[in-house]
Amino acid sequence: DWPGLGPKLCLRAAAMGKRVALVLAGCGVFDGSEIHEASAALVHLSRGGAEVKIFAPNIEQRDVVNHLKGSPAEEKRNVLVESARLARGNIQDLAELKASEFDAVIFPGGFGVAKNLCSWAVDGKNCTVNEHVNATLQAFHSAKKPIGLCCISPVLAAKIIVVGTELTQGRENESMRFPDAETASAITELGCKHICKNVNESHVDKANKIVTTCAFMCKAPLHEIFDGIGTMVQEVLNTGE
Amino acid sequence: DWPGLGPKLCLRAAAMGKRVALVLAGCGVFDGSEIHEASAALVHLSRGGAEVKIFAPNIEQRDVVNHLKGSPAEEKRNVLVESARLARGNIQDLAELKASEFDAVIFPGGFGVAKNLCSWAVDGKNCTVNEHVNATLQAFHSAKKPIGLCCISPVLAAKIIVVGTELTQGRENESMRFPDAETASAITELGCKHICKNVNESHVDKANKIVTTCAFMCKAPLHEIFDGIGTMVQEVLNTGE
Repeated sequence: DWPGLGPKLCLRAAAMGKRVALVLAGCGVFDGSEIHEASAALVHLSRGGAEVKIFAPNIEQRDVVNHLKGSPAEEKRNVLVESARLARGNIQDLAELKASEFDAVIFPGGFGVAKNLCSWAVDGKNCTVNEHVNATLQAFHSAKKPIGLCCISPVLAAKIIVVGTELTQGRENESMRFPDAETASAITELGCKHICKNVNESHVDKANKIVTTCAFMCKAPLHEIFDGIGTMVQEVLNTGE
Repeated sequence: DWPGLGPKLCLRAAAMGKRVALVLAGCGVFDGSEIHEASAALVHLSRGGAEVKIFAPNIEQRDVVNHLKGSPAEEKRNVLVESARLARGNIQDLAELKASEFDAVIFPGGFGVAKNLCSWAVDGKNCTVNEHVNATLQAFHSAKKPIGLCCISPVLAAKIIVVGTELTQGRENESMRFPDAETASAITELGCKHICKNVNESHVDKANKIVTTCAFMCKAPLHEIFDGIGTMVQEVLNTGE
């Protein structure tokens, strides 16, 4: 069962013709996009009848992590080329993304967001953001088009979008289930408001049309993360211009 | 810990007693496991309360394909190391898999199955099968434990398991939706019976306890492939020893 999205909504989304851009950061949780978050977003977008195009910046990865050992590898890989694995080859350079051609944009999480799309993994609050990521978020935000963000991706909005943005990173003061609560603090220090939400929920900042879900920020069973991303996708598809 | 296993879920899995091994072949449709098939299987296994362990052979990939260009890259990668991306680091060498410790085994598809787990991509019906893949399938089959296979993975059963096995590769004589129908013919030539099924269905060979679904053999929306894999996982979890 797909929570919250019956056949009626599928028809509605199709009828509404939602064109959604998905922005990737590589392929693998420790140096790229979190694979299961990206795949979940694509499954829910497909069920919601969205027309999806996938993008990634054509830049070198900050690092390559051997995911078996959990340690850096002596290798270089390109973010666009590795993201193409998730896109089954059907992907474009993020530099070519025109916000005018889409109704919404979604960023899955994974360390690649904090390493390749911005420098949060190294610089925290003082991070810089990739120019095309910056331009993309600014363009969708100023056109009042919805932005969906998973896991660590809300830091992009915290860094770029206006002060006061409401974002979730899950729950605070529950360090067993949410070990990365310091991200919530950093987001608050940047002038945003952290909203506590469970893993199977998302939060909608209605003023800014930003939808966030904590995903793998929570140590939860995979299907709960999948369902949380489902609510995020649903909110993104239901939020009009 | 694999996030599909929270404390509650462990209890549920224990109650159901389903321990499932998932065998990967790399990370990416053209040279490894098909990412969305592997992720879908893990989501459905999580929802079904299974206790999952992930394995891959510790061997060099047959090739590395640049998924952006669709052409071979001048690189070497290891199947276990790349599969670890899908497993978020929580993976073991397939040589260590003991069928006695599991109730079922599942193989997602992707060209990696036909390149790394066996040589079908090069040798077709005359292919050889990796020794640990062979041993794994023989062990589960002779212990009468269910085997779930997606997409191209049924060729492993066609090559290894007894003559007469019923397998699906989707539908024949529908080349627009099912462009790879020659695999169905090759399976038949190996002495198996090809059963036509739609992408959102799976077929159960009750005598051999082999459950197959065509997945990306069909040009279908991603959520239909996801649902087909869901039926396969359900049948695997519902089939007793």
